[in-house]
Amino acid sequence: MKTISLMGATGSIGTQTLDIIREHPEEFSLKAMSVGKNVVLTRKIIEEFQPELVSVQNYIDYNTLKEEYPHIKFIYGEEGIMETATYEKADILVNAVLGSIGLNPTLKAIEAGKTIAIANKETLVTAGHLVMEAASKHNVAILPVDSEHSAIFQSLQGEKDKNIERLILTASGGSFRDRTRSELENVTVEEALNHPNWSMGAKITIDSATMMNKGLEVIEAHWLFDLPYEKIDVLLHKESIIHSMVEFHDSSIKAQLGTPDMRVPIQYALTYPDRLPLATGKRLDLAKIGQLHFQEMDFKRFRCLQFAYEAGKIGGTMPTVLNAANETAVAAFLQGKIRFLQIEDLVEKALNHHQTVEFPSLDLIQEIDKETRKYVNTLLR
Amino acid sequence: MKTISLMGATGSIGTQTLDIIREHPEEFSLKAMSVGKNVVLTRKIIEEFQPELVSVQNYIDYNTLKEEYPHIKFIYGEEGIMETATYEKADILVNAVLGSIGLNPTLKAIEAGKTIAIANKETLVTAGHLVMEAASKHNVAILPVDSEHSAIFQSLQGEKDKNIERLILTASGGSFRDRTRSELENVTVEEALNHPNWSMGAKITIDSATMMNKGLEVIEAHWLFDLPYEKIDVLLHKESIIHSMVEFHDSSIKAQLGTPDMRVPIQYALTYPDRLPLATGKRLDLAKIGQLHFQEMDFKRFRCLQFAYEAGKIGGTMPTVLNAANETAVAAFLQGKIRFLQIEDLVEKALNHHQTVEFPSLDLIQEIDKETRKYVNTLLR
Repeated sequence: MKTISLMGATGSIGTQTLDIIREHPEEFSLKAMSVGKNVVLTRKIIEEFQPELVSVQNYIDYNTLKEEYPHIKFIYGEEGIMETATYEKADILVNAVLGSIGLNPTLKAIEAGKTIAIANKETLVTAGHLVMEAASKHNVAILPVDSEHSAIFQSLQGEKDKNIERLILTASGGSFRDRTRSELENVTVEEALNHPNWSMGAKITIDSATMMNKGLEVIEAHWLFDLPYEKIDVLLHKESIIHSMVEFHDSSIKAQLGTPDMRVPIQYALTYPDRLPLATGKRLDLAKIGQLHFQEMDFKRFRCLQFAYEAGKIGGTMPTVLNAANETAVAAFLQGKIRFLQIEDLVEKALNHHQTVEFPSLDLIQEIDKETRKYVNTLLR
Repeated sequence: MKTISLMGATGSIGTQTLDIIREHPEEFSLKAMSVGKNVVLTRKIIEEFQPELVSVQNYIDYNTLKEEYPHIKFIYGEEGIMETATYEKADILVNAVLGSIGLNPTLKAIEAGKTIAIANKETLVTAGHLVMEAASKHNVAILPVDSEHSAIFQSLQGEKDKNIERLILTASGGSFRDRTRSELENVTVEEALNHPNWSMGAKITIDSATMMNKGLEVIEAHWLFDLPYEKIDVLLHKESIIHSMVEFHDSSIKAQLGTPDMRVPIQYALTYPDRLPLATGKRLDLAKIGQLHFQEMDFKRFRCLQFAYEAGKIGGTMPTVLNAANETAVAAFLQGKIRFLQIEDLVEKALNHHQTVEFPSLDLIQEIDKETRKYVNTLLR
């Protein structure tokens, strides 16, 4: 029995993590979770999974829920997330929160010796050097949940790192993969949210359309697999069937394939190094699909990807700026404040405005994160 | 330094094995080899690789060569192959001979504790039960050299057998993949030998065109990976880029990909579980290829594949009959004695004519092999 603490239980990855726990009650048990503001769903999860510890975002919900479920321990706010992440009865922390809020709790969980299943991109993007150093120091595994990194992780099983020639991250191209740059000028929020292959949260769907999502994944891959950016490539593959690949120096390529179902990588992170049946999962039928397509990445068409490579190579605080500027810009786009292509303009301006600091501390990362958001917001006025 | 004994050194797999040894002189050394009748190439190999032991097919060549190279030990005939297979200074036996002649020496090499890199299909097809039992008893690894089995073997690294849902062997469809059955009536030997993707020997190229090659691979996979035939599927994939796949019970699929270059699986068998650079290998460029195609297997179009599944499931001596009838029929086709579609007719007749014997001994396998060849030859008159 593996015991789980789940950060971000009511989100897209969170609820799918709960699907996995539900399907294997003899293998997994939810001990603690953090949620946002969705009290209705929180009640449902509490009643079904009976966690011992629940952290909510604000004090009002905390007060309401602790009256309703007196046998459960409730906490709230940032401190609540921290306590969830380090809950002593959990072996594994699934970090499925959105945004840079996941960073500090993850570091604390690593220090507490938890295995980390990481779905939160920003943690590795902004503080990869701190996370991987801590993981190495505390001998803790950082297991990817993202389908691309899971594909690489699965392909690397039984292989030696020294034999890796390069990673090939596949990219669907997102909602606008078939549009030219000029056609992107006036796309709507609704169009951007309509991803062809994956059903995901709003922020990540926009990031798929700008290709920033792939850019963040490139930076994550750099940290997860300890490889220079020169060894990480991106390939357009619109069907999202080959989730990613690894090329070895003997020219052999290993890949992991499947239908677009996030439960597969989530479950693999929980069962690793073993696997468990996923009975209700739709099987991949390549004969029915008939064709898989591949296309070279166009870095001029997808400028955010280029920015991510550049920020990653510069390193230090630059990826924090990339991420914070992007989060702010995407939020502004979702609120209808800016046009789609302004997302990349704002990211570019923020990067150009910043002087990188090498090996930043957690405090500095958080400071630069705030500063960047403030700066981008001034540009929005 | 791994020391190698190479059976079938002048053939297609044999010469590519020598390419690998040549490229990594500090890793591999050729200690012994067996050859057929190609004395010119044998001389070249002797001069370059300086093996200690060389087995030739006939007495005349033996007499000639031992005069020319007095410092090398020569032997000949079946006994020669046996001595090559069990040569004490070799760690690994690469079995790259064609036909059922590879069987007995392989068993003897297993008993002598050699690691077996097996390119010879017939060994596992006719005596898989004996080979795998002996390998288990003597704790010897049987490493596949075939690109499909190597792909599966590579995909299985770091995985547990219990989690395998099925193997998916890919098939290019061979020389006639785009022809209907009626168009196969009058194809020529020359057309049949023109394989679209792989440059291989004549027998295996014809076997690709009839799909018997894939059928033999299915039976081999059954033995190599200890799986029932129900868990071994074949998928048409005309580009031969995905060399084969494994589906796990969590619906995740792992695959190995590459350009059609036999040196990759040969080298993997020699370096396993490690890898070495293959500097001169052409890299796979999926963006350049653009598309990969998949199609369901048509068992009516490719009757030999159906026969192979049936013979495999019946087991016992039936796969021996399948293989011997096919070898005899293909030889007759290559000699212009029969038409292309008669190959499958002859195989079908031989299978129908035979009553299977379960768990056959090596002697019985060889007896049935001879009987079947005799029977098929009577049908040719």
